[in-house]
Amino acid sequence: MSGKQYVVIGLGRFGTSVAETLYKLGNDVLALDSDEDVIQDISDKVTHAVQADCTDENSLNALGIKNFDVAVISIGSNMQSSVMATLLAKELGVKHIIAKANNKLHAKVLYKIGADRVIFPERDMGVRVAHNLVSSNILDYIELSSEYSIAEIASPKEWHGKSLVELNVRSRYGINIMAIKKGSYIDISPSAEDMIEEGDIIVAIGSIEDINKLENIIK
Amino acid sequence: MSGKQYVVIGLGRFGTSVAETLYKLGNDVLALDSDEDVIQDISDKVTHAVQADCTDENSLNALGIKNFDVAVISIGSNMQSSVMATLLAKELGVKHIIAKANNKLHAKVLYKIGADRVIFPERDMGVRVAHNLVSSNILDYIELSSEYSIAEIASPKEWHGKSLVELNVRSRYGINIMAIKKGSYIDISPSAEDMIEEGDIIVAIGSIEDINKLENIIK
Ligand SMILES: Nc1ncnc2c1ncn2[C@@H]1O[C@H](COP(=O)(O)OP(=O)(O)OP(=O)(O)O)[C@@H](O)[C@H]1O
Ligand SMILES: Nc1ncnc2c1ncn2[C@@H]1O[C@H](COP(=O)(O)OP(=O)(O)OP(=O)(O)O)[C@@H](O)[C@H]1O
Ligand SMILES: [Ca+2]
Ligand SMILES: [Ca+2]
Ligand SMILES: [Ca+2]
Ligand SMILES: [Ca+2]
Repeated sequence: MSGKQYVVIGLGRFGTSVAETLYKLGNDVLALDSDEDVIQDISDKVTHAVQADCTDENSLNALGIKNFDVAVISIGSNMQSSVMATLLAKELGVKHIIAKANNKLHAKVLYKIGADRVIFPERDMGVRVAHNLVSSNILDYIELSSEYSIAEIASPKEWHGKSLVELNVRSRYGINIMAIKKGSYIDISPSAEDMIEEGDIIVAIGSIEDINKLENIIK
Repeated sequence: MSGKQYVVIGLGRFGTSVAETLYKLGNDVLALDSDEDVIQDISDKVTHAVQADCTDENSLNALGIKNFDVAVISIGSNMQSSVMATLLAKELGVKHIIAKANNKLHAKVLYKIGADRVIFPERDMGVRVAHNLVSSNILDYIELSSEYSIAEIASPKEWHGKSLVELNVRSRYGINIMAIKKGSYIDISPSAEDMIEEGDIIVAIGSIEDINKLENIIK
């Protein structure tokens, strides 16, 4: 086992997905929740699954929490449990603590008591889905910075049968095409002569403004 | 107003983020929730915010739901409300219905009663965050297909002071570098002579296998 040791505390939809994915990627994963049913469901998909109350210092100690490299605290709705678990993980000496927050105030508290990184999964996914919706051609979206983004775009009808050089998207829309998906094949170094065909999906990088413009043009 | 008309039903963390982002992108957004406090909080950030029960056909009718282009049903925990809202939106003639699901069974029901697209925000974000954690150098991650992905990578120390041609990542790791972030500047067409410097962030595209290998090498 070359991976790190992770403990995931709170197995809601987000925590479960984190724990199962970490395990699939070859890591040692302890999954912890106070709900017995949740523990039963995940037991085959992680290294260990234990029913315990994460606000109980003795339980965490007995589980050897201090030996873990990373704790992921993924309790959104119950702020008290989330805060207590973060505090205890920190005090027990877990090296890196990531915690899920409900809102900005919750995040502030988590940082104050020692979280190294606070995340807002629902908020971030909401931003992404909204961008997808604005153009039914935008399939996925990453904000690289406050200015740049990458978008996965279903090629609009008007582009079919044209080559990249003919479409001239760089100067027309200010974006770069980084890849073209043709069914299960992906061309990750498209050349100027490559043709866009019906069903092709384009991966483009550009300023958020230019990508938004494109979303509005092709929607 | 060039945008479409959206109704977002259920203003949890996800629904709120979808509604606010759609509005920021220039669309008409009706936000609907049965909780008065939630409605008060969002009222300045969308076109209209209305307290109503989404399982009540008369209320939805009175709000003119049938005139909306897209309904986003974002109620995870209360499956009954989510299913009822989806059914009513469909019956009232909303053109496009996106619904958030808790699990596969919930998703199946939503598709059967007319959802055009079902999403799992927590699960998807969990997969993303797990990949980020596996290497502290991986900052963001998109799965393009079951085989290809894009990753945002904090440049590892060993890369600093080397040019792209020297690093030769294409043949060494099988990935393509699509962009280099240098602080707030992003170079979206890097050339072979470009140097990687401390603090630079790289945007790479490649097979999931090759990106995972890279995650393991640079972690
Ligand atoms: N004190 C505690 N000890 C252990 N587990 C707890 C504790 N408090 C809450 N949990 C667990 O945390 C999990 C996630 O909590 P909750 O569902 O409130 O979060 P959420 O952010 O809404 O989740 P989701 O990712 O599904 O959106 C639940 O399975 C719950 O049993
Ligand atoms: N029948 C209903 N009519 C209108 N709104 C409803 C109804 N049932 C639930 N809601 C609202 O839906 C919203 C989201 O519900 P809930 O918190 O259960 O979902 P969730 O998936 O856990 O949300 P999150 O995005 O925060 O993870 C809540 O604000 C709730 O008031
Ligand atoms: Ca949630
Ligand atoms: Ca879309
Ligand atoms: Ca990012
Ligand atoms: Ca990371």
